[in-house]
Amino acid sequence: MSIKTPDWVKDAVFYQIFPDRFAKSERVPKATHLQAWGDAPHPHKYQGGDLLGVVEKLDYLQSLGVNAIYFCPVFQSASNHRYHTHDYLNVDPMLGGNEALDELLREAHARGIRVVLDGVFNHASRGFFQFNDILENGPHSAYLDWFHVTAFPLSPYDGTKPANYKAWWDNRALPKFNTDSPAVREFLWSVATFWVERGVDGWRLDVPNEIDDDSFWREFRARVKAANPDAYIVGEIWHDAQRWLSGDQFDAVMNYLFTRPCLAFFGAHTLDNRVNEASGTGKVLPMDAPSFAERMTRVAAMYPDEITFAQLNLLGSHDTARFRTAVGGDESAHRLATIFQFTYVGAPCVYYGDEIGLAGGPDPDCRRAFDWDEARWDHETLELTRRLARARTTSPVLTRGTFEVMTAFAETVAYKRAFAGREAYVVLNADRTPQAVYLASLQPGSYTDVVTGGAVRIGEHHTFSVEPRSGMVLVPRE
Amino acid sequence: MSIKTPDWVKDAVFYQIFPDRFAKSERVPKATHLQAWGDAPHPHKYQGGDLLGVVEKLDYLQSLGVNAIYFCPVFQSASNHRYHTHDYLNVDPMLGGNEALDELLREAHARGIRVVLDGVFNHASRGFFQFNDILENGPHSAYLDWFHVTAFPLSPYDGTKPANYKAWWDNRALPKFNTDSPAVREFLWSVATFWVERGVDGWRLDVPNEIDDDSFWREFRARVKAANPDAYIVGEIWHDAQRWLSGDQFDAVMNYLFTRPCLAFFGAHTLDNRVNEASGTGKVLPMDAPSFAERMTRVAAMYPDEITFAQLNLLGSHDTARFRTAVGGDESAHRLATIFQFTYVGAPCVYYGDEIGLAGGPDPDCRRAFDWDEARWDHETLELTRRLARARTTSPVLTRGTFEVMTAFAETVAYKRAFAGREAYVVLNADRTPQAVYLASLQPGSYTDVVTGGAVRIGEHHTFSVEPRSGMVLVPRE
Repeated sequence: MSIKTPDWVKDAVFYQIFPDRFAKSERVPKATHLQAWGDAPHPHKYQGGDLLGVVEKLDYLQSLGVNAIYFCPVFQSASNHRYHTHDYLNVDPMLGGNEALDELLREAHARGIRVVLDGVFNHASRGFFQFNDILENGPHSAYLDWFHVTAFPLSPYDGTKPANYKAWWDNRALPKFNTDSPAVREFLWSVATFWVERGVDGWRLDVPNEIDDDSFWREFRARVKAANPDAYIVGEIWHDAQRWLSGDQFDAVMNYLFTRPCLAFFGAHTLDNRVNEASGTGKVLPMDAPSFAERMTRVAAMYPDEITFAQLNLLGSHDTARFRTAVGGDESAHRLATIFQFTYVGAPCVYYGDEIGLAGGPDPDCRRAFDWDEARWDHETLELTRRLARARTTSPVLTRGTFEVMTAFAETVAYKRAFAGREAYVVLNADRTPQAVYLASLQPGSYTDVVTGGAVRIGEHHTFSVEPRSGMVLVPRE
Repeated sequence: MSIKTPDWVKDAVFYQIFPDRFAKSERVPKATHLQAWGDAPHPHKYQGGDLLGVVEKLDYLQSLGVNAIYFCPVFQSASNHRYHTHDYLNVDPMLGGNEALDELLREAHARGIRVVLDGVFNHASRGFFQFNDILENGPHSAYLDWFHVTAFPLSPYDGTKPANYKAWWDNRALPKFNTDSPAVREFLWSVATFWVERGVDGWRLDVPNEIDDDSFWREFRARVKAANPDAYIVGEIWHDAQRWLSGDQFDAVMNYLFTRPCLAFFGAHTLDNRVNEASGTGKVLPMDAPSFAERMTRVAAMYPDEITFAQLNLLGSHDTARFRTAVGGDESAHRLATIFQFTYVGAPCVYYGDEIGLAGGPDPDCRRAFDWDEARWDHETLELTRRLARARTTSPVLTRGTFEVMTAFAETVAYKRAFAGREAYVVLNADRTPQAVYLASLQPGSYTDVVTGGAVRIGEHHTFSVEPRSGMVLVPRE
């Protein structure tokens, strides 16, 4: 079948927000029992971020160059990460409720910023209505077919007794939906279309591989695309995602196959595998430039271009240690990786706070509150991110161009992006010494080095000198 | 302070509906695991009645003369009676959701039928969001102040361990709100106004005495009346309700002080105290006519008229055995009581199905499904109820008149209602022999006997003969 993904995603600069920790508005009444903003994250405590807080920071996001936000779950949930859904049709009251989301959609769209929500459709929570009905009514519940109950009584909270129901990874907090039930299928599909009809621009799907049923996702796609053909559907698949990427299920996936090589190459000398082993990425083995070049060439060719250009390329997320922490705090590794992220094929997704150098180990530490005191920001990384975002949203060669490695040796790699007769050239020197690189077959002309902002003329000379732990991104001028 | 209650209530004929058991529409998708309609009620099973079913039976209710419906709870709840609220802002999906209530309000209002909902504000349920947050997050919950938690861990489902939170009558299914918390107060008040603003005509308040806080109910009234000055506020108070009936809290109460004497007098010979003792009414001692007359005179004078005319006079409810069953199945006792109910001061409230002679012992048996097979109906009681409802909604003397006993002896009682120079006369003969009764000071003129529909001329003769176990209701003709 012919594959079509939303064009806006190809041009997108995503920003991932963990709603409890990004920004907090005075306009949302707060619960009385919260952690202080910026306290060490706790698995069970709230800090009180909300969606109107995000609205009030849209100027910041816009100035960063962001034109799409992916939100970790926003629906009513008795957990600070909100992956334990209590109510799929209501935004959490602590986030400001449905009205806050409406305001956010209005204000974001007015700035050309798209909004993608996190859809947790494999499992619900112990407080979710139909599961609660089974807890309350036992074998007499009207909703027995909604979950996988094996015996009574269920033991939702007492781990010394058998749970007697299927749950995600045997975590009894997360009862698994019975997606063979027609009522459950209709319910989940209706949730998906309800929010898209309300203005949401797409779904990031949590652990969609756990719903081992292509027909479920095909119908999911059909309904979502019927509601908005431009809605983005991106699955959380950590490995090869061919099964879901034939055009009839997802548009793309969260590209963790992009993440690991970035850690391995840019962080080769400083990797903190203590944190990686405790994180979603797992232990990472260092990589040199030729291996990195080979790997990223393969990753760029795994799927048809229509999908590759719509991939969500991330350096980290709420499920991993932050990139900077995973590479032992090395700022240069983080900046090099950021350059790569914005100049590779697929849409970059900045995990909130990475751009100001926020640190954070494995979950829950990677979910620290955004620090709004600019005196503590890493302004160099912030400014670099801004330049890269601007370049990406103004240079089609970076979003639609082919990816081709030009050379790779020791710890230096160079590649080109080519589109419609224009080319861009990127050199990344991860070495601790300056490197002179000869690049063949360059197009003469005027370029801008996105990293410095300076003008570069390409004429007879094909050799470029790149400072240690630094990069060069030459995009053609108008 | 001056006391004001809604005028429409004084003219109302109420009908109480238990939503799971009145009527079922094809238009509401049903859960797969329901009891058959009409099966013996079970504490934990659903039969699948819904609000669109009620819409489809509005013609029936209108033909009965009903102009107000009091619904047992309709909000999302994991219990067939829905007193265990899971979500105060959503109508239960099995009832058709918020859209079904909207349709019901529209259709009912178009027929001049008001709709009063049941507000369960003292306690929530184990699945209610903020309580669930405490279950999930323990001492770290953001909502600790919403309930009365005494220690951790809470034990919501395992009765062998201390519950560690306050609950209604120590029923751990019903955690009691901490109504001292500002957040809880605001929440409950906002629920009340949310639904009134959506078109609901009032609130029946479940166990409001358990919220031992006049300031809570004063503000509740202020907000509800600000949203709609005509909204009705009727409390479930089984005893003297003076505390709440000074004009600043409730408009009226469910008049169980009316119910018990009716059982005692009309059912004197056939009372089934086995069922009463297991029911909300408790054991009932037989009463003769003089005692009944004394008692009902006292009840009519307990509160200012403005309140008395707005009282909700009921023969039974979801909390008691059905009247007919409580009087040992005696149809004549039930019919006499119905005549009394429609001709006494205050608004009559028919418990769904009583008018067709539906039987039912104590909860849950009093919650049987309405039987839509007319062949099994008690048409005599139905027709009597229709005549009484019509009389009540067309004769101001029955709704606004004073209540004055004229005579009472053995098992016969006669009383008059007087308003604006007109009088109505009622004679109830609960004896098993015909009774001749002399009534003094009658106004000569043309009357209709509501019970037979026949014309009666009052002139020189003041003696009326009334058949055994029968009644006469003379209302003045135009």
